[in-house]
Amino acid sequence: MKSFEIQEFGIDNLVLADRPDPQPGSREVLVRLKAASLNYRDLTLVQGVYNPKLKRPLVPLSDGVGIVEKIGPNVTRFKPGDRVAGCFFQQWIDGPHTKEKGRSALGGAIDGVARECAVFSEDGLVAVPGFLTDEEAACLPCAAVTAWHALFEEQPSIPGETVLLLGTGGVSTFALQLALLAGLRVMITSSSDEKLARARQLGAHLTINYKATPEWGEQARKLAGGEGVDHVIEVGGSDTIANSLRAVRTQGTISVIGALSGREGGISPAPVLMNSIRMQGIYVGSRAMFERLIRAIEFHRLKPVIDRVFPFADLKAALRHMESKQHFGKICLKF
Amino acid sequence: MKSFEIQEFGIDNLVLADRPDPQPGSREVLVRLKAASLNYRDLTLVQGVYNPKLKRPLVPLSDGVGIVEKIGPNVTRFKPGDRVAGCFFQQWIDGPHTKEKGRSALGGAIDGVARECAVFSEDGLVAVPGFLTDEEAACLPCAAVTAWHALFEEQPSIPGETVLLLGTGGVSTFALQLALLAGLRVMITSSSDEKLARARQLGAHLTINYKATPEWGEQARKLAGGEGVDHVIEVGGSDTIANSLRAVRTQGTISVIGALSGREGGISPAPVLMNSIRMQGIYVGSRAMFERLIRAIEFHRLKPVIDRVFPFADLKAALRHMESKQHFGKICLKF
Amino acid sequence: MKSFEIQEFGIDNLVLADRPDPQPGSREVLVRLKAASLNYRDLTLVQGVYNPKLKRPLVPLSDGVGIVEKIGPNVTRFKPGDRVAGCFFQQWIDGPHTKEKGRSALGGAIDGVARECAVFSEDGLVAVPGFLTDEEAACLPCAAVTAWHALFEEQPSIPGETVLLLGTGGVSTFALQLALLAGLRVMITSSSDEKLARARQLGAHLTINYKATPEWGEQARKLAGGEGVDHVIEVGGSDTIANSLRAVRTQGTISVIGALSGREGGISPAPVLMNSIRMQGIYVGSRAMFERLIRAIEFHRLKPVIDRVFPFADLKAALRHMESKQHFGKICLKF
Amino acid sequence: MKSFEIQEFGIDNLVLADRPDPQPGSREVLVRLKAASLNYRDLTLVQGVYNPKLKRPLVPLSDGVGIVEKIGPNVTRFKPGDRVAGCFFQQWIDGPHTKEKGRSALGGAIDGVARECAVFSEDGLVAVPGFLTDEEAACLPCAAVTAWHALFEEQPSIPGETVLLLGTGGVSTFALQLALLAGLRVMITSSSDEKLARARQLGAHLTINYKATPEWGEQARKLAGGEGVDHVIEVGGSDTIANSLRAVRTQGTISVIGALSGREGGISPAPVLMNSIRMQGIYVGSRAMFERLIRAIEFHRLKPVIDRVFPFADLKAALRHMESKQHFGKICLKF
Repeated sequence: MKSFEIQEFGIDNLVLADRPDPQPGSREVLVRLKAASLNYRDLTLVQGVYNPKLKRPLVPLSDGVGIVEKIGPNVTRFKPGDRVAGCFFQQWIDGPHTKEKGRSALGGAIDGVARECAVFSEDGLVAVPGFLTDEEAACLPCAAVTAWHALFEEQPSIPGETVLLLGTGGVSTFALQLALLAGLRVMITSSSDEKLARARQLGAHLTINYKATPEWGEQARKLAGGEGVDHVIEVGGSDTIANSLRAVRTQGTISVIGALSGREGGISPAPVLMNSIRMQGIYVGSRAMFERLIRAIEFHRLKPVIDRVFPFADLKAALRHMESKQHFGKICLKF
Repeated sequence: MKSFEIQEFGIDNLVLADRPDPQPGSREVLVRLKAASLNYRDLTLVQGVYNPKLKRPLVPLSDGVGIVEKIGPNVTRFKPGDRVAGCFFQQWIDGPHTKEKGRSALGGAIDGVARECAVFSEDGLVAVPGFLTDEEAACLPCAAVTAWHALFEEQPSIPGETVLLLGTGGVSTFALQLALLAGLRVMITSSSDEKLARARQLGAHLTINYKATPEWGEQARKLAGGEGVDHVIEVGGSDTIANSLRAVRTQGTISVIGALSGREGGISPAPVLMNSIRMQGIYVGSRAMFERLIRAIEFHRLKPVIDRVFPFADLKAALRHMESKQHFGKICLKF
Repeated sequence: MKSFEIQEFGIDNLVLADRPDPQPGSREVLVRLKAASLNYRDLTLVQGVYNPKLKRPLVPLSDGVGIVEKIGPNVTRFKPGDRVAGCFFQQWIDGPHTKEKGRSALGGAIDGVARECAVFSEDGLVAVPGFLTDEEAACLPCAAVTAWHALFEEQPSIPGETVLLLGTGGVSTFALQLALLAGLRVMITSSSDEKLARARQLGAHLTINYKATPEWGEQARKLAGGEGVDHVIEVGGSDTIANSLRAVRTQGTISVIGALSGREGGISPAPVLMNSIRMQGIYVGSRAMFERLIRAIEFHRLKPVIDRVFPFADLKAALRHMESKQHFGKICLKF
Repeated sequence: MKSFEIQEFGIDNLVLADRPDPQPGSREVLVRLKAASLNYRDLTLVQGVYNPKLKRPLVPLSDGVGIVEKIGPNVTRFKPGDRVAGCFFQQWIDGPHTKEKGRSALGGAIDGVARECAVFSEDGLVAVPGFLTDEEAACLPCAAVTAWHALFEEQPSIPGETVLLLGTGGVSTFALQLALLAGLRVMITSSSDEKLARARQLGAHLTINYKATPEWGEQARKLAGGEGVDHVIEVGGSDTIANSLRAVRTQGTISVIGALSGREGGISPAPVLMNSIRMQGIYVGSRAMFERLIRAIEFHRLKPVIDRVFPFADLKAALRHMESKQHFGKICLKF
């Protein structure tokens, strides 16, 4: 089978290797992959930024969907022909996160899905809804679970609350769609008026161009009626968090999800304490969360927003497209 | 009546003024103060650091205990002779914090208790346990409520968990005592071996001298068994928070309480998100929390740790003593 | 002013008395009432069933809307001309319920709103959204707050969950509308196919005629996919609860709200424990909950379902109409 | 190996059979059992009361401790020589309970531990603290996890709260010990003054002889200071629950754990709703809860209260002893 591998860092250094087909052991399943989707983590991982000490060679990408081709002994959850997605953390099944569960991230701690077939523990897979295409279903494991986790798992959002989304990447786009399902008021930022118009078409209620309004935190607070927004889905990191702290209301929540703009510093303790703010680190989520997300997606027939689909072999072009920051929604691969 | 006032910033500039006795209106109560206690906030407030734009003149100090001398019309909660303490936030009765409730902090937003008598809304007072002296009871409103809030109100601590306390000031000392009541394992830091010995006498299980061990976050993680501590009571701020982030376990909690060492920057989003950490700003607490604290204190006959008691007139000396950082536990005033 | 009073129990014994206009004291507000709505509690209270030891004479009805006519001294929350609704519990402002807060229920513990004007503490009122008529706004204090509390305050519902509603009275109708806002799947029962058709028009996804299907609990479990529903809004009481326990999934919730069909017995401990069920008594809610409900109603422009509006003087006819159980949604009075 | 089996119901009908030693498969572990403990469930199960449709033959007993003798392929959590206890639910690892996880109860849904050796999935075992004897450790899986779950997992108890325990069986005795660790006030009932004296020796603060005081619910409310207790650990069922509902405060909790006195009816919806009571079914708990319990037990060196230890072969006598209700604390078997 064909398999992409990070041997040296850099998009250009990705290698498309030929490997023997793996075989499923006890309670394991062999999946022939049909589609994958990219996350910003994958880009920074390939670039060597995400984890400079990454154990290599490594098959990148966490999000893949495929068909069960073969099952090992003692498998009870799946049968050949089932369509499945891999869980981001192969061993975070239920309950809170732990260090140990965290050592099972696809395309990071262990080999990912940028290959034609892969063996998974049957516990690390979920069945995907039939009404989604392979590419659509492949969008869910990281970005959608992250958005779902932040909105509904720690301290569930309730109708009428205002959520602030930063930018129009994968997590924010899913958060927009999921927030609308739940009756939330959605405020979103972007540097592009065109992307903001697109977000409004998808249902966003309030938009801020953060280039035109560098003090967008203050602006978000005003638009929310002076008290501030209830929840910020913080995908930005060091460079955005001061504004996010301005935007959020007393006793509000900041879900700390990303570090797109920087990983070090930026959070001041004073506003956190003076305004009784809760900052909750969100690192994707468990299989149980994924299953609750799928239940909601299935019931509402929610379709992920796909920016563009590349052929499997064009992974490098797909990563370059993400690097350009021109996308709105998810970038996918089709096998 | 005599009343201390901040007119110009600086300990030396505190003024002891003579003011007419106030009179209680409807649902109000006149309290003759018997004792007060100091918090680090009071020191920085007098110094002009806490809030450079503070509206002056202002009567400083948030924590006072006294005897109800006179009640206004329609008062039902208290009668003359009752011994009471003022709530830090006069209008945070119950439920979550709000911006509006926050505008009622004694000795900050409104005049405090460094005066011989004061009028309170009957809703802003609690009855104090009879077994405590006036000075002991005066230690509770800010530091003890803060410690209680962090340990038991947001996500209650359970027996066997490890809590890390920073230093031996008022909040940490109460947190030590309250954590022991609840069956927690207590780890505490100080720059003084003598203070650490004192903390061990009070029941602390594990101690770290942060001068001798500058990488005390790493050390705390090791002492906790490798996974990290469950909860950090973070009174330090910018200069300690990187170590606190090292110390805490995956999906653990940092209660962001103070900014003793600095107010700006210092918190990096990357470890917060990678380790699914919850950072919860804690700003004292509500009257309902204060009442639950009092119930626990009364049941366990818990005595606050008092460092030293100064006469009312010696407020400047008391503030100087706090400035010296030689204290262990609370500094009080007796009227 | 005219005022209805319960002197002897029984609808026919209601007295329309003439009373002097009350005057607002400190922090109080005089409200000229414009509309009221009826709850099943009002009917059973007038009948003498709800509380046979009721202190009489009592002005019935808990839910009223009116215009602030006059304010007493020290009022800060309202001014003459404001349109307001009274909170069911005049003293349950925020935080959890207590026995003391419970002693302030309008039209039960204290005089209610079936009168032309009434004095309220300013803390016992909320401003109502401008887009609602007086009658619509008068539907909110008891039934809508109860439905909101059950769905979003104790353990908030999340998109894709299934909620089971019993009958088409006031609480169930609001629960239907609010559940749809939040992306829930709604299952509802009635003895009338016509009412079920109406519920489907309002958006209900699944309906059960409990007369045609006496084992409706089993049926609800099946319709929910075999595992059971996530949440039952239990307004029925003794005669329905065995079926509700059949309907709900392991680790699901039953909000115990009403006792329409009976008040004694009926709940077996065995299924509660074997299926890890949470039964949560819901008794209307706090002012803070009412305010969060109003925020959601205002954002979504949600209009209450009104069955019929009677003139103020026809309170007896309105109660007779409720007694007939022919209504769907709320029965109102217009002053 | 020797193995007890239920073929026909009734203590006298228990069969001691000879079976071949089982062999561990992939991710499985063979444990040689050293001790077991009895729960009331085991007695009613053997009697045919707990589940008249029980699939037989069945090896009874859920709680056992032993030594890992042999491990199958792919085992990573244990090695030969480790001392372990089986989890009550072999497949409830973490997160909330589900129907599926519930189908794995030892000595009920599947064969239990009343045999010399047994094979477990490595996921269904926990390591036990070294300072406990085998019999002591064998007391934990059902009764101690249940008490822990009720006190600290759903809505953790906080210092100063009052918990009411019914009787002095296994769950209540553990709840007494664990509540004391956490700084709770403990009230306990019994029909025997001698057992109440023993409970006071163990640290109980308040005791009620429910024979001498048939209205013990009212008495508990009074002893708790008029408002009622915060939490009832309800092991009684139909015959005790009306008193438990009298005992508990507004917005208090009843953990519905047992049905010792009856399984049907008994719970009235009216007091549940009028007092905003939470009734939470508690069915033992997950492995994650067991691990948190063990952490607390290890830290506090808490020793279970053992009533009497019988030799393995005397299981019938041990069950007869439980039937006599003369015990205080746990009844054990030694292999």
